[in-house]
Amino acid sequence: MCSVSLSKKRVTLLRREMSNLQFDCFICRLNSNIQYLTANSKVSNGEFVMLIPLDSQPILFTPKLEEERVKEEAKNIWVEVLGGEEKIEDKILLKILELKAKKVCFDSLSFNQSKIFHKKLSKVKIDCKPEILLNLRKIKDWEELKALKKACRISDKAMEIALEFLRVGVREFEIAAEAEYAMRKMGAEEVAFKTIVASGFRSSFPHAGNTDKKVRDGETVLIDLGAKFLGYNSDLTRTVFVGKPTQTQIKVYRVVLEAQDKALKNINVGMVGWEADSLARKTIEEKGYGKYFIHGLGHGIGLEVHEPPRLSAKSMDKLEKMNVFTVEPGIYLPKKFGVRIEDTVLLTEEGLKPLTVCKKESY
Amino acid sequence: MCSVSLSKKRVTLLRREMSNLQFDCFICRLNSNIQYLTANSKVSNGEFVMLIPLDSQPILFTPKLEEERVKEEAKNIWVEVLGGEEKIEDKILLKILELKAKKVCFDSLSFNQSKIFHKKLSKVKIDCKPEILLNLRKIKDWEELKALKKACRISDKAMEIALEFLRVGVREFEIAAEAEYAMRKMGAEEVAFKTIVASGFRSSFPHAGNTDKKVRDGETVLIDLGAKFLGYNSDLTRTVFVGKPTQTQIKVYRVVLEAQDKALKNINVGMVGWEADSLARKTIEEKGYGKYFIHGLGHGIGLEVHEPPRLSAKSMDKLEKMNVFTVEPGIYLPKKFGVRIEDTVLLTEEGLKPLTVCKKESY
Repeated sequence: MCSVSLSKKRVTLLRREMSNLQFDCFICRLNSNIQYLTANSKVSNGEFVMLIPLDSQPILFTPKLEEERVKEEAKNIWVEVLGGEEKIEDKILLKILELKAKKVCFDSLSFNQSKIFHKKLSKVKIDCKPEILLNLRKIKDWEELKALKKACRISDKAMEIALEFLRVGVREFEIAAEAEYAMRKMGAEEVAFKTIVASGFRSSFPHAGNTDKKVRDGETVLIDLGAKFLGYNSDLTRTVFVGKPTQTQIKVYRVVLEAQDKALKNINVGMVGWEADSLARKTIEEKGYGKYFIHGLGHGIGLEVHEPPRLSAKSMDKLEKMNVFTVEPGIYLPKKFGVRIEDTVLLTEEGLKPLTVCKKESY
Repeated sequence: MCSVSLSKKRVTLLRREMSNLQFDCFICRLNSNIQYLTANSKVSNGEFVMLIPLDSQPILFTPKLEEERVKEEAKNIWVEVLGGEEKIEDKILLKILELKAKKVCFDSLSFNQSKIFHKKLSKVKIDCKPEILLNLRKIKDWEELKALKKACRISDKAMEIALEFLRVGVREFEIAAEAEYAMRKMGAEEVAFKTIVASGFRSSFPHAGNTDKKVRDGETVLIDLGAKFLGYNSDLTRTVFVGKPTQTQIKVYRVVLEAQDKALKNINVGMVGWEADSLARKTIEEKGYGKYFIHGLGHGIGLEVHEPPRLSAKSMDKLEKMNVFTVEPGIYLPKKFGVRIEDTVLLTEEGLKPLTVCKKESY
């Protein structure tokens, strides 16, 4: 079990941004952000709200039914428990008034909630800037990296198990079940996302999910899976051919592998997202498959499976040291098959360091 | 695999509400609502937006990378594919202008998105009413009931497997892993929520999750699990004692069981949420445990695990025929143990019909 221990370093980083933007109060409603600021605690699995004033003690608002759990786990954070049917919005309103805050920022705010706040806080300027914490979260620290590495090790092992289990006649969801079971037994708190096991023509759908379709001889099978460990996610894809692959299958596979290799070897600190993307995209275009690479090269990963930086054709996101993201080129031939090869990687001064290291077939 | 087939009946129900409230265009951004309107398709697992004009053909906006999957699955719905880096907001804006809509309603809208829409659609009235579709979704039809029943059967069986696996020395997450594996092998597309396996003092946390804590002799173990089948969720809790229970454990268990029984036998069509809640609450209060029943009696369940109607101390939600909800009284003694017994039930003219039927211990 983790304790709900405020990360002083991360709160300081947030306050620096608040100060720059002249916010005197920041309100976190997203579980991922609360988890980030409470140093990877599990407290965020519930309907919590965290309020961070610029100059005073952060407060965690907690529903009544979470009171005992949070008290058990809370170490250095002020907890305020909501009464039975008390509304969290009212608690926030009162606290903002009490703090005499003038400019308040949310990490997430709905249109309907904003109407309530605007009405009752007519003198307070209200803004919503999810990017503030997302930008901080782009740069992982060593503690985060440890959790990410463990999540990656779990997914590596699960992929091996899935590939061992794969054979003609087995159903896609059965392969997914084996991989997910393995991840849970290894201590993953849950799967990072719905496992993809896509066989045959279904491998041409980038987000295929898994169905009761049986795997047949000669088919392409694309497996995309991830584990969540202490809140941090991994993301890993391998594509294999059942039985003897055709010349086209081999050709497409080699192009994707070469594109990934090109990106893995050449992405560097200081590049922007589109430059990284173009390394793989050019390779695929040169081989004539450009129009079948229908998504970006990758995405940042951490407390959420998809977070900044984006590696896509138009992304201007700067790639920095200690970013963790995926590198996942793919070619999808409609009604035929698709190939994607994906690893989760860490960006260092010396270039990319793969965190998932599961074997890739070399057809 | 399901086809993306528009549910004409459900769209008609939505349009009736739109007409009553004078909306000429409704925009669905929530996966659960898109799934509802497309008759339980799986198309909603992605970043889709559905636009339902009052008088013309509904449109499903689809990201480029989902194009082939949606085309494969789509039967009677108009699909518009977004180009590579096209923004969905721009597509919606253009369509609203093209339709000459005057009053547009969203099922979900963020503050930041609302600013964009208000700026660019200065003459259009914009509203967000999640309750419109949630209210329609409260009354299940036979097709939905079939999926719910299957989800319930899967969770019944998974609970049996978890309880068989439970023994001294086993870790909470290992029990959860067995239950989840069983659900997936039985065809659940995923778990409905993070499985709770809470042993000893941790059973006093209603939302305990599962940890690497080992189960010890004499402990209370609370298991709360659910399966998702064709999009529909089940929710089931059983509490057991490992070894010989104490008099207090038996006493608390019997109070919770009696409270649940009282509710199961007496909840009727036409009651409101608080009346249903009070059936169980009074029983628990009479035995002196009132202040330890720290949540509502239950919640509607369907495409989401928590949806209307609410059964809680102040809920005015009307209970109607073909509602499906949980009945789950609990007593949580801080630092000691907790007991919750929960079933997913269907409300009929003849009263409640349990959809989960897994055995309850009678200590």
